[in-house]
Amino acid sequence: MKQTVAILGATGAVGEEFLRILAERRFPVGELRLLASPRSAGQSREFGGRSLLVAAVGPSSFDGVRFALFSAGATASREWSPIAVRAGATVIDNSSAFRMQADVPLVNPEINAADLAGHSGIIANPNCTAMIMLMAIAPLHRANPVRRIVAATYQAVSGAGRAAMRELEQQTRDLLTGRPAQPQVFPHACAFNVFSHDTAIGPDGYNVEETKVAEESRKILHEPSLPIAATCVRVPVFRAHTAAIFLTFERPMRPEEARGILSAAPGVRLVDDPQRNHYPMPGEAAGRDEVLVGRIRADSSHADGRGLALMVSGDQLRKGAALNAVQIAEALLARTTE
Amino acid sequence: MKQTVAILGATGAVGEEFLRILAERRFPVGELRLLASPRSAGQSREFGGRSLLVAAVGPSSFDGVRFALFSAGATASREWSPIAVRAGATVIDNSSAFRMQADVPLVNPEINAADLAGHSGIIANPNCTAMIMLMAIAPLHRANPVRRIVAATYQAVSGAGRAAMRELEQQTRDLLTGRPAQPQVFPHACAFNVFSHDTAIGPDGYNVEETKVAEESRKILHEPSLPIAATCVRVPVFRAHTAAIFLTFERPMRPEEARGILSAAPGVRLVDDPQRNHYPMPGEAAGRDEVLVGRIRADSSHADGRGLALMVSGDQLRKGAALNAVQIAEALLARTTE
Repeated sequence: MKQTVAILGATGAVGEEFLRILAERRFPVGELRLLASPRSAGQSREFGGRSLLVAAVGPSSFDGVRFALFSAGATASREWSPIAVRAGATVIDNSSAFRMQADVPLVNPEINAADLAGHSGIIANPNCTAMIMLMAIAPLHRANPVRRIVAATYQAVSGAGRAAMRELEQQTRDLLTGRPAQPQVFPHACAFNVFSHDTAIGPDGYNVEETKVAEESRKILHEPSLPIAATCVRVPVFRAHTAAIFLTFERPMRPEEARGILSAAPGVRLVDDPQRNHYPMPGEAAGRDEVLVGRIRADSSHADGRGLALMVSGDQLRKGAALNAVQIAEALLARTTE
Repeated sequence: MKQTVAILGATGAVGEEFLRILAERRFPVGELRLLASPRSAGQSREFGGRSLLVAAVGPSSFDGVRFALFSAGATASREWSPIAVRAGATVIDNSSAFRMQADVPLVNPEINAADLAGHSGIIANPNCTAMIMLMAIAPLHRANPVRRIVAATYQAVSGAGRAAMRELEQQTRDLLTGRPAQPQVFPHACAFNVFSHDTAIGPDGYNVEETKVAEESRKILHEPSLPIAATCVRVPVFRAHTAAIFLTFERPMRPEEARGILSAAPGVRLVDDPQRNHYPMPGEAAGRDEVLVGRIRADSSHADGRGLALMVSGDQLRKGAALNAVQIAEALLARTTE
């Protein structure tokens, strides 16, 4: 049965990815409403061979809508979610606004689709970095409980939106022609540079991104006290996030065992070829649905065999955002028709 | 007293940095011999206002030389070091050829200058990544023994030499003009990408760079069994290496205590400003002598206060290579005149 779908933030980097993914996956879209702030309204976007006008979001935008896919920032989500829910829509929210709310499921369908049961109108789409990391961690955790996660990330600029992607391109051109870098979206130069993630630093010294990774991972894994430390860093890459992860398990975990588990895990593609030095790279993860996982080896700082090191790389705009949201909608539809 | 100095590998990225650093530090250079393979011989380089011809290295190249600074790769070091030592020179070798040999001191002068005593003609300059990381780790280790090191690196392409730096530039230009990346120096695209370090993978799954970081750190710190795990990764940055480090100490270590120790450590500059989100970045470390250290905070995966997380960034060609070698020569001169 065809569904009326609304996309809030339709002109953003994630918004455009929504259009591509709904089409690729032949999601049963009936009416499609493209919505944005008044500033971005009036543009048009293609879908299913037709050109659709982007409308300014308003009080009646969600009347008759089944799924409202939100990716316009936490402020917009807080403003429009109650209105969309009252209109009868299920909001799948890509912002951080509701993720840690107890009555809002935070769902990665490959991991915790069961958490969708009994939602109250809003489903939160997890933080992109947490999501990409958990695609590798969760299947291992099911086999042998993870007792500690340490990670350092290599995050694409797309996480800060389309303007950030343009900034990386323009700044790179400027530096290559001898002009100075002029950071506007980011506080620091992003071209040919690396910097600690540009979110606010809390009293514990962790930035908001790192705190999201820790808190959201605990919620998705149903491990409220799992020890996690992350250092989140931006790199000059357009759209896929990479992470170097060190895991400590309850019991010893051999690399071959982990490889076996991950090669059978849904949404994961094992890229782990020492001969060719071929491992997860953002250049290969970009545009793909699967999260790439590899460089699986014993953590050499653990003598007891309980440590494992690995790398993951996943498209920030797809699995890290739009794809996961559409998968949530698919999972909700499957539950309805079961 | 003026010293006769030879530079083997004078036309390489590190070789050129030697010239700059000898001049900047007013090292007492008498005669300066610029040496290279026959392929690179015949070029000239400026030093002290004069143009010097680069000669092909040969059996008599080191006669009368006091310090032979080598940066032409491990094969050249193995070939020419014995000849230079027989000629009476002290070889300060930037390659990995002799670093783990028991009779060769592996020295970072700020950390273990005392190891220079009783050398037998060859001093090894440590791996750039290990060196940059240890500038922050060693002072902390002296105050409170480090019992475990976990690190993920963000390494500049300069570690693979000048050709790699040109490759990053050319590949970036190509991608920005719609042409495909054509990797030659590296096995994978380096522009707008991130990849696991391009050294061979050993039977334990660790690449040569990671093994160097672990083994050399243990040797420099005099901790032969210190547990260390590193994931070494290349990023599209020209010449400074960055690392996200997680340390476990023997006793609890408060971030303020670590900040106090590091703000007094030689060769280290604390860059740790949460308000401005200002932390170590390769863009600011490039061209500097000091290693930048910051993002100092408790490792949130340790409940007992024994964990510390931090970031470092240091110029790979300076402290990671040429500067440290010249500092070794200075330390040797100081020992002679004591």
